[in-house]
Amino acid sequence: MDAQWIKQAMEYRQLVDVLMSDKEHADLVLHGGQVVNVLTAEIYEADLAIKGKYILMVGDAQQLIGPETITVDVRGQYLAPGFIDSHMHFESSMLTITEFSRLSIPSGTTTLVADPHEIGNALGPVGMKAMADEAGLVPNHVHLVVPSLTPDCPGLETAGYDVSSKDMEDLLNYPNVIGIGELQGFSNAAHVYRNTADIVTDLLASTIYAKSIGKMVDGNAPELFGAELAAHIIAAGGRCSCHETTTKAECVEKLRQGVYVFMREGSTQRNMAECIRAVTEDGLDSRRCILATDDMVAEDLEKLGHMNEIVKRTIAEGVDPAMAIQMVTINPASYFGFQDRGVLAPGMLADVAVISDLHQMKVEAVFLEGRLVASQGELLIDLPEYTYPESVKNSVKREPLVEKDLAIASQSQEARVRCIGLIPDQNLSETLEFTLRTQQGTVMPDVRQDVLEIACIERYGRNGSIGKAFVQGFGLEQGAFAESVAHDTHNIMVVGTCLKDMTAAVNRVIEMGGGIAVAKNGRIIDDMRLPVGGLITDELNGHEVSRKISQLEQTVKEQLGCKVHAPFMHLSFLALSTSPKWKITDQGLVDVNNFTILPPVIE
Amino acid sequence: MDAQWIKQAMEYRQLVDVLMSDKEHADLVLHGGQVVNVLTAEIYEADLAIKGKYILMVGDAQQLIGPETITVDVRGQYLAPGFIDSHMHFESSMLTITEFSRLSIPSGTTTLVADPHEIGNALGPVGMKAMADEAGLVPNHVHLVVPSLTPDCPGLETAGYDVSSKDMEDLLNYPNVIGIGELQGFSNAAHVYRNTADIVTDLLASTIYAKSIGKMVDGNAPELFGAELAAHIIAAGGRCSCHETTTKAECVEKLRQGVYVFMREGSTQRNMAECIRAVTEDGLDSRRCILATDDMVAEDLEKLGHMNEIVKRTIAEGVDPAMAIQMVTINPASYFGFQDRGVLAPGMLADVAVISDLHQMKVEAVFLEGRLVASQGELLIDLPEYTYPESVKNSVKREPLVEKDLAIASQSQEARVRCIGLIPDQNLSETLEFTLRTQQGTVMPDVRQDVLEIACIERYGRNGSIGKAFVQGFGLEQGAFAESVAHDTHNIMVVGTCLKDMTAAVNRVIEMGGGIAVAKNGRIIDDMRLPVGGLITDELNGHEVSRKISQLEQTVKEQLGCKVHAPFMHLSFLALSTSPKWKITDQGLVDVNNFTILPPVIE
Repeated sequence: MDAQWIKQAMEYRQLVDVLMSDKEHADLVLHGGQVVNVLTAEIYEADLAIKGKYILMVGDAQQLIGPETITVDVRGQYLAPGFIDSHMHFESSMLTITEFSRLSIPSGTTTLVADPHEIGNALGPVGMKAMADEAGLVPNHVHLVVPSLTPDCPGLETAGYDVSSKDMEDLLNYPNVIGIGELQGFSNAAHVYRNTADIVTDLLASTIYAKSIGKMVDGNAPELFGAELAAHIIAAGGRCSCHETTTKAECVEKLRQGVYVFMREGSTQRNMAECIRAVTEDGLDSRRCILATDDMVAEDLEKLGHMNEIVKRTIAEGVDPAMAIQMVTINPASYFGFQDRGVLAPGMLADVAVISDLHQMKVEAVFLEGRLVASQGELLIDLPEYTYPESVKNSVKREPLVEKDLAIASQSQEARVRCIGLIPDQNLSETLEFTLRTQQGTVMPDVRQDVLEIACIERYGRNGSIGKAFVQGFGLEQGAFAESVAHDTHNIMVVGTCLKDMTAAVNRVIEMGGGIAVAKNGRIIDDMRLPVGGLITDELNGHEVSRKISQLEQTVKEQLGCKVHAPFMHLSFLALSTSPKWKITDQGLVDVNNFTILPPVIE
Repeated sequence: MDAQWIKQAMEYRQLVDVLMSDKEHADLVLHGGQVVNVLTAEIYEADLAIKGKYILMVGDAQQLIGPETITVDVRGQYLAPGFIDSHMHFESSMLTITEFSRLSIPSGTTTLVADPHEIGNALGPVGMKAMADEAGLVPNHVHLVVPSLTPDCPGLETAGYDVSSKDMEDLLNYPNVIGIGELQGFSNAAHVYRNTADIVTDLLASTIYAKSIGKMVDGNAPELFGAELAAHIIAAGGRCSCHETTTKAECVEKLRQGVYVFMREGSTQRNMAECIRAVTEDGLDSRRCILATDDMVAEDLEKLGHMNEIVKRTIAEGVDPAMAIQMVTINPASYFGFQDRGVLAPGMLADVAVISDLHQMKVEAVFLEGRLVASQGELLIDLPEYTYPESVKNSVKREPLVEKDLAIASQSQEARVRCIGLIPDQNLSETLEFTLRTQQGTVMPDVRQDVLEIACIERYGRNGSIGKAFVQGFGLEQGAFAESVAHDTHNIMVVGTCLKDMTAAVNRVIEMGGGIAVAKNGRIIDDMRLPVGGLITDELNGHEVSRKISQLEQTVKEQLGCKVHAPFMHLSFLALSTSPKWKITDQGLVDVNNFTILPPVIE
């Protein structure tokens, strides 16, 4: 037995002494609260007794109170296990793990399971291990589930690093890594099977290896039913989750086939209200229903809250509060095999959320391993400092562009072009066609029709490719904006009304070594550095990031005339080559359903 | 990855091909059955498609049917996952694993989790490993959970081998061993803590070691509440079951504290109807409610059935059939961490019970890993032959007794004696006193008052001790019977009306190397050999054992006048020194609550 376990045996030995002798007592007793017992789905009055970092017992704790015991009267307040976010990406918040924790702990979240597939695409194991190192430092419980495949669509896009089964032994045995993250390569089962059947073999080498060492595998099965869903589950090793379920029928199907449904409720993608109907309307057993955020921005975390907000919305859909809280505690703990938390019971870690109003899910205080760490929304403890290594900085490896690099050529006076139709608040896109004017052999965007140019520029020094096409839906009247966040390979995305501003914006992103830039009249009017992998800032704290992103969005709206909210997130998802119908990568305009690249100009 | 996992990756790869291509098809489709979906707690019509040993999918399987697919019409019948018995002792049935499987598979049981603590007490690791070897041969899934401590009450009894934490690394890493069985040493928490506090330290060394290698730990917490229950849970490593819950209030308490409650329903101990009220009356979440048999005799298995019978009784208590079936499928699978069964879902092993009537739980057919293994109550396959090694035979190591060895001495003409009061169908006993006549310095049993002599004779050649006392309740009018089954240390127990018959019966058990013997008028009138550890017969099949035990019971009733049913089981439990109030071991009359030995004659 290694030291960690010997330590636990000694700690547990002491707990038995406290429980059985009259000589030792609890350190802390939360007295008279309403315990949300997620084991029995009951709420009733009981004490919660704590020794060190563990729960001694839940019940009448009078005999465990000694002269040195701190007793806190929590009558009228609710005691729930600390919340678990079962699927999230730190990168979406642009925050380090430390800064995300600063914002999420006070809302009752004590465990985060993160898929670092953005930094994995950008930097491979080096980036993911840096995040795993940071995860090991913060006081809350942060675990990583790593991608088994980058890029998502080999051949159709270029990532900074190609993760495959060859990397699994190294990654899955790294500290704080508990499994494989969303199974990217088989989310679009029929197409992958038809086009890149060898991916299935590689996936299984990864997923079965994970299983063989007791690690778990998340799935990712948007719109899959029947045999395709079954194939996806089996490719995941036979046990998986899905956080891409958007309809009630899909939710029913997945629960029936044994999938743990992560009902997503993030900053832009909100699927809980639809999914939960499988429980509220059809009465399905909810033990495999779990709430997760997937992608949350700093501002929402700061202003709305985190899992407490999602639970509140779930209760508002008619779910019993104890059952809703099961979906962020015992249900995910069962899925992940966390045997030390997720319930308030003897020997568990004393991670506790103290809630004043179950329907508002207002979290008054948070205990983490027996320690009061937050009160009234404020973190009471210092967080450790983690310095990201130089190896994850300067991930942008290319020379500045010239305007010609972004030009879409045509020899005709007019060109019939393919144009991505942006759908607000969705990852999906439409396929459109327009006729545009050309000037000196270059097809020109048309601001009046809101047909702008969009491009994706490979940034890892691997092939220098640039994909180009047109997009409708942003509504820019002038200028351009660019960013090194572009799901999931995170090359540089740019959208603009003219090549001059597009080039300026991209070059600023290159110059910053990653970030966001807004250009107008050939000048940069606003920007933000994202030094860590071109995705995350380690220069601002959570509150500052929230303000900075708001300011950038305002600049794009007010100065460029952008009509869509959350423009940076929308732009970044237009590179997501796994979600239909047309997307753009460094390799060009991707016809997602047919796994092919289309030229922007129709010949 | 070792070969087992590479094989699974290849098998899964083939399943994906069947699901995604038109070229390959299912081997078997059970068409149009009513699927008992324990994931969602629904029952609805669906097909079940199987390839090799795995389930391909549950749903509309039309597209998976090819010319070579066997399609079976199961309309009107119910399809459930194969049943799991989560806590049982093969030794109680006196059957080998093979013979128990012969009787239990046709009733739908496909997984057995056995605690070999009887043979563990008799023979230590040698005996348990022999059973683990047999477990690996049978076609159903048999797992062992080994004791962390033998004997249960060190100092108060003598086992054949003293198991402790020193044995755990060896035992827990042995094939087919999945964890630690019922936590004997801390079932009587207050007394153990007060009398043998060092046991707690040793238990934690064992339980935390099990946890550190991903193995589980069963608990055993009769009548524990509050702090004592919490201490027990923590001694078990923080996560445990209990199969000794006998009241609703105890069941509520244990579910609230996170214990997985194994509602016991065996041949003599029937606690389900009382425990289930926590669910039917109070509506507690049933996910940690599990059904188990603990001890079943061959005759019940043969005539009543196995887990199907227990489920039937549970449904009769008002539990929804899908929920009752969850208690023998998904609930135990979650507890044990079985990720390959317990649900009907893609990639799971195709262990299926086909049921014609849910309320009668009549099992028509059983599939095990995709193969039809039983139909209409008959096993359709041959079971492998396992030969128990000589090392587990001849476990009785002592010379024959003479009458004097069993004499209880007193110099007075009359003696005031302590007498165990047998309580029919319970492990518990009463404390009684009587005045008996003495003859030539020996206290004589008194048949008219039904005060008989009872003795427990050490049989492992360790110290030769003989414990002696009196017992009321058997109602023998003449003769004696003896057996080498005596929970949990399994020395030789004997009860009788006179020393001559008692001595004869014991000597026959010694001569047979273990077994049961009935004596009358100084002669043996019936007997049965139990060559394996003195507990199990490897000479008779399941049906023969059932008949032989019936015959022995009849002999004891008709020839000796015994008034209690199941006399051999009752006698064997009078040695169980963990259950109050008085018991007898080779060390003497045990005052269970006070952890002391009392002399049979009151001075």
